[in-house]
Amino acid sequence: MPIVDEPVHPAWLPPGAWRPITGRRVRVTGEGLLVRTVLAELRAAGATLVETDGDVEFGLGGDPALDGEGFEIVRRDGRTLIRAAAPHGLLHSLFHLLREAPAGRYRPAVDRRMVDHWDNVDVHPVMGQVERGYAGGSLFWRAGEPRRDLPRVAAYARLLAACGVNAVALNNVNVHATETRLLTDRLAEVAELAAEFRRYGIRVHLSVSFAAPVHHGLPGADPLDDRVVAWWAEATRAVYEMIPDFGGYLVKADSEGQPGPFTYGRSHADGANLLAGALAPHGGVVHWRAFVYNHRQDWRDRSVDRARAAYDHFTPLDGAFRDNVVVQVKHGPMDFQAREPVAPLIAAMPATRLAVEVQATQEYTGQQRHLCYLAPMWSSLLRGTDGPAIAGVAAEMVAVANTGDDPFWTGHPLAQANLYAFGRLAWDHTLDPVTILDEWTGLTFPGASPALRATLHAVMDGSWQTYERYTAPLGVGFMVRPGHHYGPDVDGYEYTPWGTYHHADRDGVGVDRTVATGTGFTGQYPQPWASIYESAADCPDELALFFHHLPYGHVLRDGRTVIQHIYDTHFAGAAETAEMRRRWQTISDEVPTELFRRVAGLLNEQVRSAEEWRDQINAYFLRKSGVPDEHGRPIY
Amino acid sequence: MPIVDEPVHPAWLPPGAWRPITGRRVRVTGEGLLVRTVLAELRAAGATLVETDGDVEFGLGGDPALDGEGFEIVRRDGRTLIRAAAPHGLLHSLFHLLREAPAGRYRPAVDRRMVDHWDNVDVHPVMGQVERGYAGGSLFWRAGEPRRDLPRVAAYARLLAACGVNAVALNNVNVHATETRLLTDRLAEVAELAAEFRRYGIRVHLSVSFAAPVHHGLPGADPLDDRVVAWWAEATRAVYEMIPDFGGYLVKADSEGQPGPFTYGRSHADGANLLAGALAPHGGVVHWRAFVYNHRQDWRDRSVDRARAAYDHFTPLDGAFRDNVVVQVKHGPMDFQAREPVAPLIAAMPATRLAVEVQATQEYTGQQRHLCYLAPMWSSLLRGTDGPAIAGVAAEMVAVANTGDDPFWTGHPLAQANLYAFGRLAWDHTLDPVTILDEWTGLTFPGASPALRATLHAVMDGSWQTYERYTAPLGVGFMVRPGHHYGPDVDGYEYTPWGTYHHADRDGVGVDRTVATGTGFTGQYPQPWASIYESAADCPDELALFFHHLPYGHVLRDGRTVIQHIYDTHFAGAAETAEMRRRWQTISDEVPTELFRRVAGLLNEQVRSAEEWRDQINAYFLRKSGVPDEHGRPIY
Repeated sequence: MPIVDEPVHPAWLPPGAWRPITGRRVRVTGEGLLVRTVLAELRAAGATLVETDGDVEFGLGGDPALDGEGFEIVRRDGRTLIRAAAPHGLLHSLFHLLREAPAGRYRPAVDRRMVDHWDNVDVHPVMGQVERGYAGGSLFWRAGEPRRDLPRVAAYARLLAACGVNAVALNNVNVHATETRLLTDRLAEVAELAAEFRRYGIRVHLSVSFAAPVHHGLPGADPLDDRVVAWWAEATRAVYEMIPDFGGYLVKADSEGQPGPFTYGRSHADGANLLAGALAPHGGVVHWRAFVYNHRQDWRDRSVDRARAAYDHFTPLDGAFRDNVVVQVKHGPMDFQAREPVAPLIAAMPATRLAVEVQATQEYTGQQRHLCYLAPMWSSLLRGTDGPAIAGVAAEMVAVANTGDDPFWTGHPLAQANLYAFGRLAWDHTLDPVTILDEWTGLTFPGASPALRATLHAVMDGSWQTYERYTAPLGVGFMVRPGHHYGPDVDGYEYTPWGTYHHADRDGVGVDRTVATGTGFTGQYPQPWASIYESAADCPDELALFFHHLPYGHVLRDGRTVIQHIYDTHFAGAAETAEMRRRWQTISDEVPTELFRRVAGLLNEQVRSAEEWRDQINAYFLRKSGVPDEHGRPIY
Repeated sequence: MPIVDEPVHPAWLPPGAWRPITGRRVRVTGEGLLVRTVLAELRAAGATLVETDGDVEFGLGGDPALDGEGFEIVRRDGRTLIRAAAPHGLLHSLFHLLREAPAGRYRPAVDRRMVDHWDNVDVHPVMGQVERGYAGGSLFWRAGEPRRDLPRVAAYARLLAACGVNAVALNNVNVHATETRLLTDRLAEVAELAAEFRRYGIRVHLSVSFAAPVHHGLPGADPLDDRVVAWWAEATRAVYEMIPDFGGYLVKADSEGQPGPFTYGRSHADGANLLAGALAPHGGVVHWRAFVYNHRQDWRDRSVDRARAAYDHFTPLDGAFRDNVVVQVKHGPMDFQAREPVAPLIAAMPATRLAVEVQATQEYTGQQRHLCYLAPMWSSLLRGTDGPAIAGVAAEMVAVANTGDDPFWTGHPLAQANLYAFGRLAWDHTLDPVTILDEWTGLTFPGASPALRATLHAVMDGSWQTYERYTAPLGVGFMVRPGHHYGPDVDGYEYTPWGTYHHADRDGVGVDRTVATGTGFTGQYPQPWASIYESAADCPDELALFFHHLPYGHVLRDGRTVIQHIYDTHFAGAAETAEMRRRWQTISDEVPTELFRRVAGLLNEQVRSAEEWRDQINAYFLRKSGVPDEHGRPIY
């Protein structure tokens, strides 16, 4: 294969992906910006635009029940007829045609499918240009200045639209001094980006600091102070004057050092409602993150449990939020570990609009150096395989972006599939991750051979579970190097204020979160999950050490002891990475050379890192437990 | 007491320290720069300079055996007569008079007493302006530019001279790109600093990169390449043209990523002799650091022992170095831990000029937030209390500087005593650390009350051993947070490539460095120490885990088990810091307010940190060993 000649990889929209359109006679009716986008895409794809009798016909006037984004595909007499109630539905239908979607009615499962960027304007001295970013710099800013690479932003918006995303937050939830100015004197930079996203039906949102009024001269930011209310009203009016379809604000308040209403003795509802009030006249929403916990915990005090924090803080406020407040909850009660139970808060806020946040950027899942296809995890959480289901409860889905100015967008080329799969699952949570991978493969590698498809399934379908096997065992989490979070350090967070512990001693390991003898966290779940998690006999093995402190000799549901399970999974996980590397070598002729080489190099690192994880985890637990491996494999 | 009104603290040369001179009739004979410095100091001190019959007389013409820096004090008929063979001796004698030195002959124990700055010109992205600096910025550079605060440099030179230092290396041994230019087009900055130090008899040295010729356009830096030889000869000639008394080069080669002769298949002798050849015609020396080890070690391989590295690398080269090469050895075989045995290399290079390096900057001894008076450690090493003596073997003494642009020079005001004590011990290794503290107290706090003196002894004399008690136990070392090295992290380095391990498991802890069953490191020592260290029964308790992997139940020489010793010392060490804090509060009226407050604030942090150390270390070993504390104290 030739070296990719595009400076930027086309991801899931290469020219070949447009084969279902190219050369067809297509008729489009309707008007407006998004209809013009559809027309431009069709022209670029080599369709013949006709006034009558198209092979494919896009038109408005469909069933109003399809709402703003839904559409219907009808196939009749060899022709494909599409009807939507609004132009946004026509745009979605276009991308569905690329996937050769069968006839039927299509509507997104949730109204807002959002990608949150943790991009900084200034380069942060510790976190850099993109916080927890593993794909190069920001698409939007570089070293304090706007990048103004608008064609690239448009290409990005197009990719997001093509997988179903309709909202994007542009900047980091940790809002530093310079970034507060995006809301005010640097708003033109936001407007410029919004214009690109708008063409693909994506509204932009901004992360704002709760202390923004203080940055702009007010003595305080008390949400019940009239001057503060007026300041937000005026600032928000100015935003909408420049960006009429602005999405709203995203706020991380009273969390990990960010300011918030607690400073003024006010509640999160007071804080969120303040911003909601400013946004309501303009149709905007505030996303208020529920990631609130004490990050200065005393590790000595085992009665405090960070996992409890979001529920304890927010359930008393259910019903107290204005209609245009969206409480944004991380999918798990801790922080985007490779395995966590679903956050109990999600099942406990019936009177509140919830967004559930997943992390496409692989902070804790290999940092886009490791191949880790996350759709199976997200699918399992949505469907409620091991806990209360997210689907049907969450009103919105949000992913922290894994994209940057890397030529492959995502650092690891195959990590593109995570972003794609997020959009697709957010649109339709019933989709099977294996099917999504097939879709993605067909678009990304047009005409993919059966061998290539089989290899991608072999290296990707199970890669999340492989990653889980060689990292922290049995749901206990963390064990990463503090700070940058890459690579193993079993005790790295064990004696810190962060609330992320494993409590391993010579007899056992795990966190007792039961009601009977532990922190009582299991009691935050509805039945039957409260009882299932409470019982060491019934708890899923994958979460055994999240909920229980177990002796090394405890026999798990799969029949193995805790210690032998640790050894076995770690030897297996590392071996699986070596097999992934071997399989990848077999398709060197089937993918572009640059992409092949990038992945091959990363797989070398993944194998090395997985072996390091295996050996550190196994050595740690052998030294502590004294129990030898049943199979006599090398442990150091 | 009033707030200190000097912008910079006068350290051990406040006006009151000059009481033995002030108002006296003093006669000085002799000429030259250093005699002019003596005259200027006398005038500033308020002496009356006379032509005849002084109460104090300084003159040249002393016994030539006193060499360049020695002098004799004679007291006769109420007069004090000083004779030196050279002006430098007169300068030293002046400061000895401040200490009310008794009559006698004085000569430094070693010819060169040097302070090495690890100052960077540019701010390093990780290490900052001063690598391992805990006293603010550099006195010499700020953000890539020379500071040109020459009065402050002169004040610093005066303090160094007053404790006996006669050489200073200006820049970090890790020489980054900008810093290589100090040797060439930025040499004028060095010359400007050298002029200030020269007035106090201090020669300046530069850290250079072995790859400097490559930075300046040559294709390589092979020490046997004639072009490289010619490059160094010419560069060095240019240095001496601008700085005729330039001291020489300091080199960290083939160590922690720094370039060196290994790149070209040459030995350290080849490398050092190259630079020595360039320096010899001008009377300069090269300090060649012996800190060479594999910092990419595999933690799984217990046969490799970093402690062995310097000896293994350098002893084969004994006798191969030119006369003006000084091999500079860290005092211990690892890296400036609070407790290490003396480096065996020091006793194994009879045909090589050695400098022994200690670390005044408190990288591993509390980072100038903890009070840790280091003179007792240095004294013990010099005298050979627990191993071969350094005194009599080392031809030079070097301290890594603990100074910066902090108003108190050293961050922790009482850390000034470490720099002072270094100079004094380097001059006379027989001095008692308690006596040195008295000297320092008398100079720094003129007219100090008995209560102040008693309190300073109470909080400082034993502070090194207190620090040792609450940190890594029994000589095993490290257990610090990786990277910044502050605060506890027992396993922080246990599974890293750095070669710094403790090998704790559920049965025992420590590194087996014996010949019989371990790495063979004990065999690098001369007798009787090889046998003493080899035997777990004879090895000093303080080094027990440095040399042996011992069961938790092993009974130490002091009658306690290893595990109980760990618990006891950690409870004791933390309690001692609380007592230090209490004692400090009793002398609030005896020291300047700003100094009092600074120390009081730092003691709060020291108490907090010591309790954190106590609880993490004790919890770690309780969890691992399962052995409870005999006294039932709280362990988490």
